[in-house]
Amino acid sequence: QCDLTGWWENELGSKMHVDAVDSQGNFTGEYHTAVSSAQKPIEPSPLLGSQHLDEDGQCTFGFTVNWKFSDSTAVFAGQCFAGDGGEEVLQSIWLLREKVDSLPSDWKATR
Amino acid sequence: QCDLTGWWENELGSKMHVDAVDSQGNFTGEYHTAVSSAQKPIEPSPLLGSQHLDEDGQCTFGFTVNWKFSDSTAVFAGQCFAGDGGEEVLQSIWLLREKVDSLPSDWKATR
Amino acid sequence: QCDLTGWWENELGSKMHVDAVDSQGNFTGEYHTAVSSAQKPIEPSPLLGSQHLDEDGQCTFGFTVNWKFSDSTAVFAGQCFAGDGGEEVLQSIWLLREKVDSLPSDWKATR
Amino acid sequence: QCDLTGWWENELGSKMHVDAVDSQGNFTGEYHTAVSSAQKPIEPSPLLGSQHLDEDGQCTFGFTVNWKFSDSTAVFAGQCFAGDGGEEVLQSIWLLREKVDSLPSDWKATR
Repeated sequence: QCDLTGWWENELGSKMHVDAVDSQGNFTGEYHTAVSSAQKPIEPSPLLGSQHLDEDGQCTFGFTVNWKFSDSTAVFAGQCFAGDGGEEVLQSIWLLREKVDSLPSDWKATR
Repeated sequence: QCDLTGWWENELGSKMHVDAVDSQGNFTGEYHTAVSSAQKPIEPSPLLGSQHLDEDGQCTFGFTVNWKFSDSTAVFAGQCFAGDGGEEVLQSIWLLREKVDSLPSDWKATR
Repeated sequence: QCDLTGWWENELGSKMHVDAVDSQGNFTGEYHTAVSSAQKPIEPSPLLGSQHLDEDGQCTFGFTVNWKFSDSTAVFAGQCFAGDGGEEVLQSIWLLREKVDSLPSDWKATR
Repeated sequence: QCDLTGWWENELGSKMHVDAVDSQGNFTGEYHTAVSSAQKPIEPSPLLGSQHLDEDGQCTFGFTVNWKFSDSTAVFAGQCFAGDGGEEVLQSIWLLREKVDSLPSDWKATR
């Protein structure tokens, strides 16, 4: 079964730790990003999300990162895949929402 | 100050309820989607997310919806804007991650 | 039948003109954006794209805008819908690719 | 200088050929996709796009693929990077617009 608990690292060098997943699939954790578009120094930031608890170990999941060093918020959506050797791989796509001053700037707020 | 607590409705007719936001900006709630790409009947599904607590009332936020009637997961990232009359408007962009059988199908899993 | 030829305006006030569509569905035109993330003054910029030529008038299309006042490039993908009164509406989603210095910054280059 | 002319292959095994780039940066070519969400057999499909002609060889570009075997259209936006050994690498992000029956289904039309 897919279990997101533990440490994960992506190809950019960012790391995250997912704490215990509860019986609903909800989890908390901490994201240590290696990259940033903000001016301030990077700090570890809390993440909060949810995964499906499919028995085939191929669950989809999503989580939110509330950046502590900037006004922006990131969300990730992905799926866990079990490799041939039992190794688990996460594939995900993210959106980064940056704060903008007003509605007319909303069009450029999301990467 | 921006507070996501309460009922919200989007232009597709989907509705969500955000329960009380805690001191960290975390919140739970329920999403009642009006649209679906799944075969099964739509059911209200739990949401879980986080918002910034900026004093200017223009917070960014993100949340995850763990669909109860399908294997997929949605994430939303957005910002709250206070209108001239004090009315709050949410602008957000979403990703819908659908479950796929294996890694080679990963490319088409996200709308 | 759907024909993109002519002037179109979006909800941000950006306007585009599509010149004659050829027998392959290819077209050229000019995009007059109302919004920009660049420093320099906005200038009309050439667009180049292609549409399907479906007889039901509900064609999908795509086009590229090569911004003349910045190093970036935008692409749009969408579909033409014929309204009840014969009026045509275009729905599209875009990506804006901004130039970055090097590969490690690639992650943040696309809005 | 960055020149998109020639054959390119991505990590999914899809290949594309870009014909000569003209003095405006416009180009045509052919895309041989290795993956598809359509029912019909895959066929090579024409592509049409535009690149910046920056002297630093780090140009951004965009192009449209008009799929011959399905009603859908893809757009790609990216940038060319010159590696240390002079090798060029393309980084791009795509959108795939699939045809939907009517406006209420528009929300799910783009991957």
